[in-house]
Amino acid sequence: MKMVIIMAIRYELIHECKQTKARYGILHTPHGSFETPIFMPVGTKATVKTLENSEIKEVSDGLILANTYHLWLEPGDEIIKMHNGIRGFSKWDGALLTDSGGFQVFSLSDIRKIKEEGVEFRHHKSGAKLFMSPEDSIRIQNNLGADIIMSFDECPPFNSTYEYMKDSVERTLRWAKRGKEAHKFPNTQALFGIVQGGPYKDLRKMCAEELIKMDFPGYSIGGLSVGESKTEMYEVLDELKSIMPKNKPRYLMGVGTPDDIIEGVIRGIDMFDCVNPTRLARHGSAMTSVGRISIKNKIFEKDLTPLDENCDCKICKTYTKSYLRHLFKAEEYLGPRLVSYHNLYFLKKLSKNIRNAIKNDNLGDFKEDFFSKYYK
Amino acid sequence: MKMVIIMAIRYELIHECKQTKARYGILHTPHGSFETPIFMPVGTKATVKTLENSEIKEVSDGLILANTYHLWLEPGDEIIKMHNGIRGFSKWDGALLTDSGGFQVFSLSDIRKIKEEGVEFRHHKSGAKLFMSPEDSIRIQNNLGADIIMSFDECPPFNSTYEYMKDSVERTLRWAKRGKEAHKFPNTQALFGIVQGGPYKDLRKMCAEELIKMDFPGYSIGGLSVGESKTEMYEVLDELKSIMPKNKPRYLMGVGTPDDIIEGVIRGIDMFDCVNPTRLARHGSAMTSVGRISIKNKIFEKDLTPLDENCDCKICKTYTKSYLRHLFKAEEYLGPRLVSYHNLYFLKKLSKNIRNAIKNDNLGDFKEDFFSKYYK
Repeated sequence: MKMVIIMAIRYELIHECKQTKARYGILHTPHGSFETPIFMPVGTKATVKTLENSEIKEVSDGLILANTYHLWLEPGDEIIKMHNGIRGFSKWDGALLTDSGGFQVFSLSDIRKIKEEGVEFRHHKSGAKLFMSPEDSIRIQNNLGADIIMSFDECPPFNSTYEYMKDSVERTLRWAKRGKEAHKFPNTQALFGIVQGGPYKDLRKMCAEELIKMDFPGYSIGGLSVGESKTEMYEVLDELKSIMPKNKPRYLMGVGTPDDIIEGVIRGIDMFDCVNPTRLARHGSAMTSVGRISIKNKIFEKDLTPLDENCDCKICKTYTKSYLRHLFKAEEYLGPRLVSYHNLYFLKKLSKNIRNAIKNDNLGDFKEDFFSKYYK
Repeated sequence: MKMVIIMAIRYELIHECKQTKARYGILHTPHGSFETPIFMPVGTKATVKTLENSEIKEVSDGLILANTYHLWLEPGDEIIKMHNGIRGFSKWDGALLTDSGGFQVFSLSDIRKIKEEGVEFRHHKSGAKLFMSPEDSIRIQNNLGADIIMSFDECPPFNSTYEYMKDSVERTLRWAKRGKEAHKFPNTQALFGIVQGGPYKDLRKMCAEELIKMDFPGYSIGGLSVGESKTEMYEVLDELKSIMPKNKPRYLMGVGTPDDIIEGVIRGIDMFDCVNPTRLARHGSAMTSVGRISIKNKIFEKDLTPLDENCDCKICKTYTKSYLRHLFKAEEYLGPRLVSYHNLYFLKKLSKNIRNAIKNDNLGDFKEDFFSKYYK
């Protein structure tokens, strides 16, 4: 008799770049298979800001993110459960990932008390008393119903003392174990462990190894892009690169500038997410093949060329910089919407180019070329 | 030798409702032929707020409006001319109408001085000194390039004295004549005369008759829906009904609530526009077959039904009230966007139903049925 364990997701490593060791693979999920490295647009409150599902399809690879903390508070995970999860709520029919809420608990709330049981904290707006435990986070994520979900972790400041960080990592590991035990749907929702440890390499290593022992279907790297230098971030990734199991996906949480994506991929990362492209867009900042431009700039007033001459997205094929600038100056809803579309498309295209470069064993050359134009 | 005069537009009266005398016709323009009565969504600053062209196509009959005053000030008509008009600027490929700027000059600016030459006034935000003459308005509208354009008129308060109104109407008539003479493209842009006169029937009649003598390709009725009672508005329309030439389109400016559309159609009106559907939408108010609802209402928190059970628009076919309410509570861009789409679709459908009722000679019955549900 053969026992078949159905896993929610499966990662196939297809090729390693000969120039950089970057990974090209395929991530199989209950709602689609996706080539990696992949960039995931962020739909914080069950909407990728300004865009509708048909557009999100066009500017993503089909896997997007939503935030547990925000949806727990508004409209509440029980209301989303009534819709059979986020996919029934927002009518997104692609694949989904939710974070654990941990990051927001630590970044949005000023007043909090960390206990073994969980975290007591104040609502970031109303000040109401709230509490979240690892079991709460998983229960909420079970209700939200994403394909990939996250362990509840503590995100201490990057420069916490070694002693504090050690205690914190150990607690995060105990929370990871408790979350795993509380997880009701491992066959349809893949729970990732999250590696913490700040800048301390031995703690990062210990955390990763302990999580690997627990055998999660994927591993996230948390506590980065929180104010530390890029060098510090890349050093942590360098440390973890050889420790992470080859047959599992690796997700660098909250990271998504072009340079960090490329440097992350070179350090073995498969998955990225960031609010950057949509947040920038709302402020009129567009990512283009020759770097970022602020479309509100007076120099674009009479510019009849597209946002990016080298972009084939529908915004660049349709509108002039002059029109886009007008929309921002007139504070029209359509401006953020059109630039959000473009910026996400830009990262989708970048991800595709990165995958092609890995397959062609020349990601190092690609990086050099891209950086020389984007960060000139 | 036969002289052929090419007119920008042509109106065909196809049928008059036996029950109400309402008109069903076809308006031929350089950018499409449109069944009338027609409702035109308003794209004030060269964008129908929140929507993109593909959506505007879906929720309009293909003829939309833009505001001369706003586009003159921002980004300036010369920049729009560089794009070969609004259609090249916003990439709207349907038909277009612009107003004259007159209404905004009188409604937005507190400080103004009316002279025979034109109007001196202050910018509604910056306070900068501005001047607009009938010739300016037409020159700007020539640059904006709409299929249908408006004479520059004075819009005095509805309850101005008879003496003031008489002077004003006479000036508006002189301005109409000057605008007609200044108009550079009568073969591609149809210039409408605007009937003013407030509540004074003899002034309305005189204004209409004088404009008709000037032989405009269409006639607008202005100075209504500016605070007067519905009875007062309908009385003006009743007065004008028999005076207006049968073979020209009649446009009731800035009017667009369902009752005013139906009552206007019954009084011979062919064209309507109003910011109401999109403005309401931005405040979370949805027009449905059973009346207006505020989607922010707590009662919709767990309501898994669509905005309007009787609506077949893509919003109603896709989303629950619960999700739409969430978008508004979370102040997400997508909320106003989805409800704007629905509200415009609602008026498009209403216009179609009105046309069908005219063709079926039962617009009176339709009105009774519609009012009993919408205004119950």
